[in-house]
Amino acid sequence: MAEPKPYGVADGSARAFDLDGYLKSRGAIVERALAAVVAESDGAATRLLEAMRYSLLAGGKRLRPILALAACEAVGGALDDALPYACAMEMIHTYSLIHDDLPCMDDDDLRRGRPTNHKVYGEAIATLAGDGLLTDAFKVLARSGAHAPAALLETIAELAEAAGSAGMVGGQVIDLLGEGRELGLAELEVMHRRKTGALFVAAVCGGARLGGANAAQLAALREYARALGLAFQVIDDLLDVEASTEAMGKRTNKDGARGKSTYPALMGAGRARELAHNLIAEAAGALREFDRRADALRALAAYAVEREL
Amino acid sequence: MAEPKPYGVADGSARAFDLDGYLKSRGAIVERALAAVVAESDGAATRLLEAMRYSLLAGGKRLRPILALAACEAVGGALDDALPYACAMEMIHTYSLIHDDLPCMDDDDLRRGRPTNHKVYGEAIATLAGDGLLTDAFKVLARSGAHAPAALLETIAELAEAAGSAGMVGGQVIDLLGEGRELGLAELEVMHRRKTGALFVAAVCGGARLGGANAAQLAALREYARALGLAFQVIDDLLDVEASTEAMGKRTNKDGARGKSTYPALMGAGRARELAHNLIAEAAGALREFDRRADALRALAAYAVEREL
Repeated sequence: MAEPKPYGVADGSARAFDLDGYLKSRGAIVERALAAVVAESDGAATRLLEAMRYSLLAGGKRLRPILALAACEAVGGALDDALPYACAMEMIHTYSLIHDDLPCMDDDDLRRGRPTNHKVYGEAIATLAGDGLLTDAFKVLARSGAHAPAALLETIAELAEAAGSAGMVGGQVIDLLGEGRELGLAELEVMHRRKTGALFVAAVCGGARLGGANAAQLAALREYARALGLAFQVIDDLLDVEASTEAMGKRTNKDGARGKSTYPALMGAGRARELAHNLIAEAAGALREFDRRADALRALAAYAVEREL
Repeated sequence: MAEPKPYGVADGSARAFDLDGYLKSRGAIVERALAAVVAESDGAATRLLEAMRYSLLAGGKRLRPILALAACEAVGGALDDALPYACAMEMIHTYSLIHDDLPCMDDDDLRRGRPTNHKVYGEAIATLAGDGLLTDAFKVLARSGAHAPAALLETIAELAEAAGSAGMVGGQVIDLLGEGRELGLAELEVMHRRKTGALFVAAVCGGARLGGANAAQLAALREYARALGLAFQVIDDLLDVEASTEAMGKRTNKDGARGKSTYPALMGAGRARELAHNLIAEAAGALREFDRRADALRALAAYAVEREL
């Protein structure tokens, strides 16, 4: 019996794809763009800019911006078409981390192996650094001078919807209010689709739209991103249970300690792993009509599961 | 000797303008639009929407949205051209109040005569309600379907710049870091121009741009809004010193108690009053090329000073 293809990677081309090289080259492009997107000083509120840069330039996988670039490339767009959007995605992701870490929220001291923003700058500046990153993200995007203003407006609207009350912020509230009681699987999925999934979808669809995607491509990429985003969350839950503090650079098993519902807790680690694999196969399947320019997206899906191995 | 014209109201037409009626009718339009702009429930994060509506629909003068509508009308635009923008302005203003009131910032218990958001919903939900209002404001705006996408994109960019690190958020940091030491007049002006002035300018210029303003009209309205915004701040400082807690519905003279610099403290109440009058005259003067459709803007400038009498 033939060995099953790993995670929907449908042919040899994707196996041969140099994901490490892709992540390095696109990551470097994102890092350079991010460093330029928030000024270092402005004569009066320099402390704010320092706090924004502290968290924005703290490393991290840059997964959302790289997904935006990869989706843009998958439909034949140029990197520059989606680079401001990639920056805006990471600014919004970073703001959400700063606010999530605040004492009134998750009260975390460490993030990416360094003291959290409020530990360094105090709660007031950290709150404002988050506000500044969120707001400036829309400035960067609106000023990016798209060839097609209508596509840019739709992308701004979709990003704001994904990040706002109907998306990430709402998901965070569901998460907060769900602490200490067990969510059902359906509730857990709604929470994750809003808290993290919506921004994954926005990253992929926005990048593709700015790269010139047609409606069929956008629909397929939406399916890809939905499945991938949920898979990442399931795998994060698994990693949170299994990994050591040292390896992750942050406190782990904090979800369990705080009485948060997780996939392994609700369905067992084995079935959670199976769910992640199925979701990744679904993500890869959504790309079946795309040519080799989508290999980075295919390889990113495979990578999502490898993190967990 | 003829009595000087009050605050640059240049002719009889503006004196006859029914500002009360205008504020009531435009205010009612804004209230209806705001009530529709944030849903009442969504099945999962309803507590978030309640918290957002609690502060958004708490009354208030609706000065920024009414300025946006009045500027739109001043250049011959229809109210509907600027109504989504007016809502976005008030959502952003409201988010800034919720975050400013947090314990880590100004730590206020009362706002518009009612308990502040975090007193009712707790700090975590209040932080997220602010985040939600800020983010959703850009959704409302980007989805508003302008006739001219380029004008809408420019308006989104200007709003984000005015509200972000280069504007309001930066001004708030300058304010926070300036507590306990005396700012010079120049520093105080920079702080106010960023903390409150930038949003005034965005309200007026955005409303006008969406109403079809030309470049000369935008330049004149920018001058109007700059002067008016600063005048409001000087007058707020005067009111804060003079008014009673009862009349304002919030603690007063908190600026003095906290060691914040104010115009009356730096230049004396008499000279601060004179400065406010001069700024209002400047605002009215900037409207000299506009016809009677700008009478609402003229009357709003006169009203700014009357508050202080």
